[in-house]
Amino acid sequence: MLIHSTPQLITLSGGPQRGRDLGRLGLIENGAVLVQGETIIAVGTTNELRAAYPAEPTLDASGRTILPGFVDPHTHAIWAGDRAAEFELRLQGKTYLEILAAGGGIISTVRATRQASPEQLCAETRPRLARMFAHGTTTAEVKTGYGLETAAEIKMLEGILALDAEGPLELAPTFLGAHAIPPEFKGDPDGYTTLICNEMLPAVKTWWQTHAPDYPITCLPDTSLPFTDVFCETGAFTLAQSRRILETAKSLGFPLKIHADEFDNLGGASLAAELGAVSADHLVKTSAADIAALAAGDTIAVGLPCTPFGLADPQYTPAKAILEAGGLLALATDLNPGTAWNENMQFAIALACRYMKLTPAQAIAAATINAAAAIGRADRIGSIEPGKQADLLLLDVPDYRHLGYRFGGNLVHTVIKKGRVYPAKG
Amino acid sequence: MLIHSTPQLITLSGGPQRGRDLGRLGLIENGAVLVQGETIIAVGTTNELRAAYPAEPTLDASGRTILPGFVDPHTHAIWAGDRAAEFELRLQGKTYLEILAAGGGIISTVRATRQASPEQLCAETRPRLARMFAHGTTTAEVKTGYGLETAAEIKMLEGILALDAEGPLELAPTFLGAHAIPPEFKGDPDGYTTLICNEMLPAVKTWWQTHAPDYPITCLPDTSLPFTDVFCETGAFTLAQSRRILETAKSLGFPLKIHADEFDNLGGASLAAELGAVSADHLVKTSAADIAALAAGDTIAVGLPCTPFGLADPQYTPAKAILEAGGLLALATDLNPGTAWNENMQFAIALACRYMKLTPAQAIAAATINAAAAIGRADRIGSIEPGKQADLLLLDVPDYRHLGYRFGGNLVHTVIKKGRVYPAKG
Repeated sequence: MLIHSTPQLITLSGGPQRGRDLGRLGLIENGAVLVQGETIIAVGTTNELRAAYPAEPTLDASGRTILPGFVDPHTHAIWAGDRAAEFELRLQGKTYLEILAAGGGIISTVRATRQASPEQLCAETRPRLARMFAHGTTTAEVKTGYGLETAAEIKMLEGILALDAEGPLELAPTFLGAHAIPPEFKGDPDGYTTLICNEMLPAVKTWWQTHAPDYPITCLPDTSLPFTDVFCETGAFTLAQSRRILETAKSLGFPLKIHADEFDNLGGASLAAELGAVSADHLVKTSAADIAALAAGDTIAVGLPCTPFGLADPQYTPAKAILEAGGLLALATDLNPGTAWNENMQFAIALACRYMKLTPAQAIAAATINAAAAIGRADRIGSIEPGKQADLLLLDVPDYRHLGYRFGGNLVHTVIKKGRVYPAKG
Repeated sequence: MLIHSTPQLITLSGGPQRGRDLGRLGLIENGAVLVQGETIIAVGTTNELRAAYPAEPTLDASGRTILPGFVDPHTHAIWAGDRAAEFELRLQGKTYLEILAAGGGIISTVRATRQASPEQLCAETRPRLARMFAHGTTTAEVKTGYGLETAAEIKMLEGILALDAEGPLELAPTFLGAHAIPPEFKGDPDGYTTLICNEMLPAVKTWWQTHAPDYPITCLPDTSLPFTDVFCETGAFTLAQSRRILETAKSLGFPLKIHADEFDNLGGASLAAELGAVSADHLVKTSAADIAALAAGDTIAVGLPCTPFGLADPQYTPAKAILEAGGLLALATDLNPGTAWNENMQFAIALACRYMKLTPAQAIAAATINAAAAIGRADRIGSIEPGKQADLLLLDVPDYRHLGYRFGGNLVHTVIKKGRVYPAKG
């Protein structure tokens, strides 16, 4: 299939974009892409590719912008229940503790997720994944973390594998047993940390090695194990507890991620850099030393602008400082039922332009090639280059800068995933 | 048609909601609506209506929330061209004056709109109206104001009437010749004010009285004349100039609106109250005296949260102060190509909850019955009551509070406009 005559083909070629290099679009005017099977075969101008492949069936992209499918490298997309009532309580001025007392907060999602059957958990999650895909996300990381006990965490992992196998949205699984302290360990975070290290991580590894080969999962750095992630934050896991968990996970062979500096600066980003984590995420209250530590390595800084937006918090990830230090910046939605029920990477881009002061070109690179790097798959997805998986978007706009400029809607006309064409609009 | 078995039927019955009364949803559990032709015939529980109308064909709304179609009472939805390049310049740190010098700003939209043929102007506007409708807006006010000369302003008015006649989105037209000072009157705002009063307003009246009867326009307070609006702001029209224009318009029989206090407090809101304007819009820098003046009358305060959001400006309409003073508050998108290209009232609600501290119930009332009052048509639209026009939404959620709680997407499953069913999703 020859997709041709786009006024702007945004390739994002050349690998992840570091520091001030962020925003290199690799724009080809009047461009074309040749897709065969699941793979991109050739990229160039329409004239070049038409001459080289005269017999190829065509898809006319005149007037539309082509770019790689969005990669959403940080989501909590799988959960049961909702917290709409809690949202209203918060607006009525109830405090966090009053909401907890009324049965709200993360533990209410844990309760609903533990109670849900595997089928119900997938049934509630499936429409969210469909909306993500319709808004142009072709690959997403999805975390466990609403189980907080071995069996419920494994139920979530199995749900992620099953939903990934259904497609078309591809999923990268993360084990986030260290998302919060479960009710059974209230007042004993060290005890729960020990449980994670001594029981959950080994159990997840054994389960994964037994069951994952039954699934066609392809979007982890290697398919041996899912990511392990920790919420390193006051009220969740201290730096020392986070270190114990991540070091144990690393010794077992898990690739690593971390939630750091959403509300407090505990040093989680430097820990991530030290341990060679694939990404460090949130990074709102991050210190200059932490930013320097990230920039000195290959750990991707993942900004989650939907979360401060969801909380009406004025502080966002300091993107400029990260880029000036030479760091690698990506964007994600943080889709979750508490602070940010948003399935749309285009909205994360619109926020990043306004509140992280990225240009549209920078935000697009952060949402594609750098986001692919944040799940360790920049070799396979995130750009339009020969040999890569054919994951692309046709946007209903003549210029890439409509991303960011416009907000509140969906600019996607067509999603192409592994070479298959999905019209996004009815 | 009997639309039945919604867990939550949000009627908004009882007319516009003043002050602390805002947020009275008129919720009926397991509700049903009977629609015949273009009109709502009966509203009640599913049991009641099924018993009363056993032979009526049905539409099953199980698991979905029903509410009135959104009314968007402040948009600049008709224009030619776009300003995506200007958005990028702004993020690169260029000043407003540098952008003006580079051909940007409102005058670039005026240039493109003047040059566009009537057909091109409608062709560029039509997809915007379709997206508004798909996001649940069933009636919208649309302003002229990118012509700034008699013929181009009338071309815009004619476009609005033609697009309204096409449907399904119903449009309420507003003449906004006083949107900005056109290049021909640079340095002479008084001269342009005189032109508006002596030439444009009489010409618009004559044109309207000759041509409007050819169109089926129904959503003005009366069909005799469109609204007249003024941008009362530093750099646009002073309070004295705004008064001249609005008093002239009033003497000619136009219903009135005003843009006031977006950046500076000039007293426009009090002027609106004094002249009995239907609405005063923006109201960010509004003084306590202005808020009291609005609350003492029936002029609706229209908050436009997408505009500060678009500009990343931390200040929003002081909704709480307006409600505590006993004012009537509505919400609108302010859809325009400069500061807020957003077609989605759901996003205006999500912003109002976070940045104007409205509850979902308050924001929904402000976006329906009170928004209908802001275009003088609370008698006909904005609530689900027998005798009203059958404009309703089926949302893909079990609880109205998902509006506000969730953001970045579209929760509309089905739009019903004048009794006709339009599935919003493909």
